[in-house]
Amino acid sequence: MSETKIPYKIYLDESEIPKEWYNVRADMKIKPAPLINPATHKKLEAEELAPIFCEELVKQELDEDTAYFPIPEEILDFYKMYRPAPLVRAYYLEKKLGTPAKIYYKFEGNNTSGSHKLNSAIAQAYYAKKQGLKGVTTETGAGQWGTALSMACSYFDLDCKVYMVKVSYEQKPFRREVMRTYGATVTPSPSETTEVGKKILAEHPGTTGSLGCAISEAVEVAVSNEGYRYVLGSVLNQVLLHQSIIGLETKAALDKYGIEPDIIIGCAGGGSNLGGLIAPFMGEKLRGEKDYRIIAVEPASCPSFTRGKFAYDFCDTGMICPLAKMYTLGCDFIPSPSHAGGLRFHGMSTTLSQLYHDGYMEATAVDQTAVFEAAEMFARVEGILPAPESSHAIRVAIDEALKCKETGEEKTIVFGLTGTGYFDMVAYEKFHDGLMSDQVPTDEELEASFAKLPKVEE
Amino acid sequence: MSETKIPYKIYLDESEIPKEWYNVRADMKIKPAPLINPATHKKLEAEELAPIFCEELVKQELDEDTAYFPIPEEILDFYKMYRPAPLVRAYYLEKKLGTPAKIYYKFEGNNTSGSHKLNSAIAQAYYAKKQGLKGVTTETGAGQWGTALSMACSYFDLDCKVYMVKVSYEQKPFRREVMRTYGATVTPSPSETTEVGKKILAEHPGTTGSLGCAISEAVEVAVSNEGYRYVLGSVLNQVLLHQSIIGLETKAALDKYGIEPDIIIGCAGGGSNLGGLIAPFMGEKLRGEKDYRIIAVEPASCPSFTRGKFAYDFCDTGMICPLAKMYTLGCDFIPSPSHAGGLRFHGMSTTLSQLYHDGYMEATAVDQTAVFEAAEMFARVEGILPAPESSHAIRVAIDEALKCKETGEEKTIVFGLTGTGYFDMVAYEKFHDGLMSDQVPTDEELEASFAKLPKVEE
Repeated sequence: MSETKIPYKIYLDESEIPKEWYNVRADMKIKPAPLINPATHKKLEAEELAPIFCEELVKQELDEDTAYFPIPEEILDFYKMYRPAPLVRAYYLEKKLGTPAKIYYKFEGNNTSGSHKLNSAIAQAYYAKKQGLKGVTTETGAGQWGTALSMACSYFDLDCKVYMVKVSYEQKPFRREVMRTYGATVTPSPSETTEVGKKILAEHPGTTGSLGCAISEAVEVAVSNEGYRYVLGSVLNQVLLHQSIIGLETKAALDKYGIEPDIIIGCAGGGSNLGGLIAPFMGEKLRGEKDYRIIAVEPASCPSFTRGKFAYDFCDTGMICPLAKMYTLGCDFIPSPSHAGGLRFHGMSTTLSQLYHDGYMEATAVDQTAVFEAAEMFARVEGILPAPESSHAIRVAIDEALKCKETGEEKTIVFGLTGTGYFDMVAYEKFHDGLMSDQVPTDEELEASFAKLPKVEE
Repeated sequence: MSETKIPYKIYLDESEIPKEWYNVRADMKIKPAPLINPATHKKLEAEELAPIFCEELVKQELDEDTAYFPIPEEILDFYKMYRPAPLVRAYYLEKKLGTPAKIYYKFEGNNTSGSHKLNSAIAQAYYAKKQGLKGVTTETGAGQWGTALSMACSYFDLDCKVYMVKVSYEQKPFRREVMRTYGATVTPSPSETTEVGKKILAEHPGTTGSLGCAISEAVEVAVSNEGYRYVLGSVLNQVLLHQSIIGLETKAALDKYGIEPDIIIGCAGGGSNLGGLIAPFMGEKLRGEKDYRIIAVEPASCPSFTRGKFAYDFCDTGMICPLAKMYTLGCDFIPSPSHAGGLRFHGMSTTLSQLYHDGYMEATAVDQTAVFEAAEMFARVEGILPAPESSHAIRVAIDEALKCKETGEEKTIVFGLTGTGYFDMVAYEKFHDGLMSDQVPTDEELEASFAKLPKVEE
């Protein structure tokens, strides 16, 4: 380790926590297509979104021009509890791989929610409180977002109702208890507590649920209860805005040591981590100042970028949400129950979809057994037990580092380690017992799903 | 937060990680009583300990004079993966309590083992590897030590056999899977895999186990298998030596900002965290340079300091280990099954026992429902879900801060936050559901246990 002065962990000072979020849309020449009303197919205006989302968040959602948003003092105070997050040089992984590549990861798991989701949860809870609301509703898949939101709501004394994808609810019994520690109520989705839940259960009896279903239920509860709004942990522009703190800190840490990344890798479900991690780097790329290879990694069992259609679709299975133009597998696509990690969403952030469509980033899909192999190797050499979601990025970072080993190139690879896997031991157990399979959707299944996409004239 | 320049988290630089461990015994005028042979009642010599423990660790165990031991480079390299650990100013807790006290906690949970146990696990694995051993055996209670040792053994490619107290094995199903991720084998104790396990099961059918039982089994397996030694995560002097890194870092961080603590608080099971946290402060106190209030906190259901006898006793239930002079509840004392956290050991570090006996520290016992109340409050305001063990220290830190509120004193309180509670959600669930009780041993039970103490002439 003496060949370099770069420490194993680069910690910024508390005073170096970014004071503004960065909105990558401001630098996009081709903006993401607007959300449209599913009934009229017209662009949604702020007043139509206000019954669903908090006012301030609607403004952030629709603002394509403001590059920087000041982070309110109350949110910065909370950030100080767990930020700055370390940028870690993966010396031990490099050594294990015998690669000349230099690998860094931004570790977002050092907080009780166990992931980066807290960055946006605390922002959304803050704006809900500021608006004088009683509480918020949401969905959660792997449970990271629900946990993060529970913590944030507890901090601001807001009620928190979480609809949790049934398969995760069953695989992660202790997630519920963490949310309960923070005072939230958790319902497995689909449930009988909502009209849309009843409808989905009638149509798909025995379904293990999906983020799309859970979103529909949470939205229904928000719009039908006085003083409640719906909040979402991914996909939306506001979420990518808040998560830009990941990328801004990463860039600040790299700049501090004069490090120039060649490849930036992030896992992609709805895009919250990837969009946040790459934001300032993508900004430089869009402005023509720098060039980077940016790689989105998704599960082969839920491959929206690599096998999806770039089209308008519902964000939820119950078809009560706005239509968004994005890479989608169809709003009633549900990944195989054998799929273990999060990253279960059928669609993708409209911003990331546009950037991918316009060639600013690559995407690749990986099989889950290969992902867990990477996860276990990483745990053993780097000492952090990674979340399955994060391990998608680890897999591709390892693959890129091994390519460098073949070519002898000393590339600098940065990836997002979004969270820890303490609540994913059922999946790890399946992997250890050889019970994990790599089930991916067939072309026929996807074609059938695409056939149901709404017809929208653009 | 603007009234002070002290950051929320004080991170030392990597270069400030202490390079030496501190051995508090070197500054003790009255040394801890030696370990003695249970058959001869004579002081144990190094060669008698060598079949059980690694050579280098035996030297550390018996050395009462050397104040500082250099930390080997290989261990420092591993420490860099998760150290320095932050010293956190509990601004949010102070605000919630409305206390003029200043509260700091040393957070040791930011690593996959979830606790401070890794500090000694990596050292013990290193010395085992250096000696050319095939593997090590150990016991684990709450599972933190077993997880830490699994990680350390995986890093040095050593076999790792863990005997896990049965009640924890059942309450913490996912702990086993984490250890398995790191390649360890885990057996619930008492088990039928050892002679001593069979004997204990015959005498106490249906027992939920204890650390004392698990130690007996692990020792038996170590001494009866070629190339194996036994390692222990607490109680021993060597463990306190390795754990001194907690206190040394804490002191370095406090010194950096000119902070003088008034009260230092740690939870105490066998003494690994407490002994490590207080080491350099106790050194100053022993040398007459400074004075501090030092408080050991133990569970009311396993109260070795506050209700135990200071006497020679076995360290294990099977009575195959050496005798140690310590505060003990008797070697076959088993805490009530309603007791949720770790800190289940019947005895206490001989060093801490001597220091307590000589008046250098205080001890207090707390009920577990009061501990979980403190844990939940702490989680909600400080954002970290604490381990039940750590929450014993939180409880007393809060109580001391509330006393300051009454008196108006601005005392500086430092406590050890040893770990996270992600694998303790069954206990949290019981607490939330009102199913947690405060069962403590009766005087009659303790007297019966004391009657069985071995008769040793000193």
